Amino acid sequence: MSTEVSNNGVIFTKTIDSGLPEIDKHFKYIERKFKISPDVLEKDEILIRNVYLSLDPHFRNLMKSAHMVETYTVGNVMKAGGIGVVVHSKNDQWKEGDVFLGDLGWEEYSKISPDEVKNGLFFKQYLKDALNDGIKCSYFLGLLGMPGFTAYVGLLVFAKPKKNETIFISAAAGAVGQVVGQIAKIKGLRVIGSAGDDNKVDYLLNELKFDDAFNYKKINTDQALKETCPNGIDIYFDNVGGETLDIALTHLNLKARVIACGMISQFNSTSKYGVKNLNVLVEKRITIYGMLIFDHYEEHYDSFLKEMVPWLKDGKLKYKEHHVNGIENAPQAFLDLFNGKHFV
Amino acid sequence: MSTEVSNNGVIFTKTIDSGLPEIDKHFKYIERKFKISPDVLEKDEILIRNVYLSLDPHFRNLMKSAHMVETYTVGNVMKAGGIGVVVHSKNDQWKEGDVFLGDLGWEEYSKISPDEVKNGLFFKQYLKDALNDGIKCSYFLGLLGMPGFTAYVGLLVFAKPKKNETIFISAAAGAVGQVVGQIAKIKGLRVIGSAGDDNKVDYLLNELKFDDAFNYKKINTDQALKETCPNGIDIYFDNVGGETLDIALTHLNLKARVIACGMISQFNSTSKYGVKNLNVLVEKRITIYGMLIFDHYEEHYDSFLKEMVPWLKDGKLKYKEHHVNGIENAPQAFLDLFNGKHFV
Repeated sequence: MSTEVSNNGVIFTKTIDSGLPEIDKHFKYIERKFKISPDVLEKDEILIRNVYLSLDPHFRNLMKSAHMVETYTVGNVMKAGGIGVVVHSKNDQWKEGDVFLGDLGWEEYSKISPDEVKNGLFFKQYLKDALNDGIKCSYFLGLLGMPGFTAYVGLLVFAKPKKNETIFISAAAGAVGQVVGQIAKIKGLRVIGSAGDDNKVDYLLNELKFDDAFNYKKINTDQALKETCPNGIDIYFDNVGGETLDIALTHLNLKARVIACGMISQFNSTSKYGVKNLNVLVEKRITIYGMLIFDHYEEHYDSFLKEMVPWLKDGKLKYKEHHVNGIENAPQAFLDLFNGKHFV
Repeated sequence: MSTEVSNNGVIFTKTIDSGLPEIDKHFKYIERKFKISPDVLEKDEILIRNVYLSLDPHFRNLMKSAHMVETYTVGNVMKAGGIGVVVHSKNDQWKEGDVFLGDLGWEEYSKISPDEVKNGLFFKQYLKDALNDGIKCSYFLGLLGMPGFTAYVGLLVFAKPKKNETIFISAAAGAVGQVVGQIAKIKGLRVIGSAGDDNKVDYLLNELKFDDAFNYKKINTDQALKETCPNGIDIYFDNVGGETLDIALTHLNLKARVIACGMISQFNSTSKYGVKNLNVLVEKRITIYGMLIFDHYEEHYDSFLKEMVPWLKDGKLKYKEHHVNGIENAPQAFLDLFNGKHFV
């Protein structure tokens, strides 16, 4: 018993070391047919109908020739964290209708390898509980997923904030930034954010109740930090790197912490920005923590959900998602991450 | 009863923000007379005959107009950590002949304020015990003092090395670097150092038994690191900052640690070097710890001495000191710190 369906997707066609990827040159939407059948599966594999894919600026790095991930290779479908529903299973621990979270392809249906299926087990019960609890499934790719968890671990595990400290967040309306700011407010910090357009600044000030926020495209960041952080910055949550990091360094207080969790401004650039103010690290005993969230699930994901879900239910957390429908629109949606068109 | 003696010294005469200080312009040797008498002291003060002053590149920063330490002010004598002998005391806890370690002036005799006298109490018993134990008093300004303690805390408290990891140390023959390397050897690490002349490289290889070392003035640092650290760097102990840091970043392994404990290459420079490779911090989950040693005496100095003194007695630690005699030679000796003329 098998049904033929479309399984259109996006193929990674050419590595690119600097500059913005181009549609059809570096990645390409293709139309394919596919037979939905248990016969396509080997032992322990499952077949997923993909529902959500989360497009992450980090994929840009994986498109470089010296990338780090074996699964991101030219000729294959692009990959992303995503959520889908099991349509066929040859794995004892999964059955039709189960919700799966893991690495999927940019395509309509993905066949999941036994190793990746095993990784997915980590989230199975959490997802089930949350869905029963009425929590939006897509939140597991945002507020309760990698971005939200990055915010939580970066802020609470690494930066260890103290009440009344000042935190500055760049790309503050982004997937990570908006969660950092809200947790920081809950923990009693003074929260300042920057973003690249007035709607985002407005959202930070009026919806998320940041203490202050500015549009870095309209106001010089150095001047804005002087005005919004007159007592200096204790924690800089750095989602962009480059010049913003360089300027923020000069506003840091003694024993400040910098969380470096993305350097989006450097992903596409042909000439890398040189950060000149690292001398303050020594003078002010500053720590910069470079982090990737994959290291922390085992230890902290459980307590993350235990804190976040009640905050969410109590209305203490908001989260804006930007949805784009249709796999054919994925390439442009990805590029829009780098021009600030998306809200998050 | 009072004796008139010379109390020549070096005065800080003009702030300097970039470039190398000039003798007679920014600091100046002067000849003075001074009456040694208890009458010069207020309650709780002590008078010290200075024996050793430790000249530290860090003083260069304190000569900038935006310096951080109130005691470093134009018109006053230059300051340095040092060791001296009490000649008069109006403080119950100190008597003539006691050995004092603390902030002294670049001069022959220094009057010590009650606050600074109190700080000095921390070291009093340690010094007494060490002298009774036959340990060279000057070591408390080097191997067993701030530089050695910086090495110990930076390596063991911050970087937390694991056996068989690779450490790269810049300015490895310097006051801090040579101790870092030797402790790292004791802890079973693979130790690579760079220095600016062949005699220093020879010392690292043949006296301190580093696994490898190179002269960065003769060999390109990137090439040298490729050859000496083929499996990458787990810990970079950064005594220089600037371009060396930028290059070292590209050789770091996953979860590497960078100890930033001096950026000597940036102290005098008119144009600051821009570090371009900070993106690796995120990709490789790297932590950079900026440290100043003053924060750590309370917690770690005792265990530092308990580990270091036996290593010293067992011949596991060597330490090269560079002595310059006469306060009139202090200004040039200080400048020589920046041209690599001193061995340490």
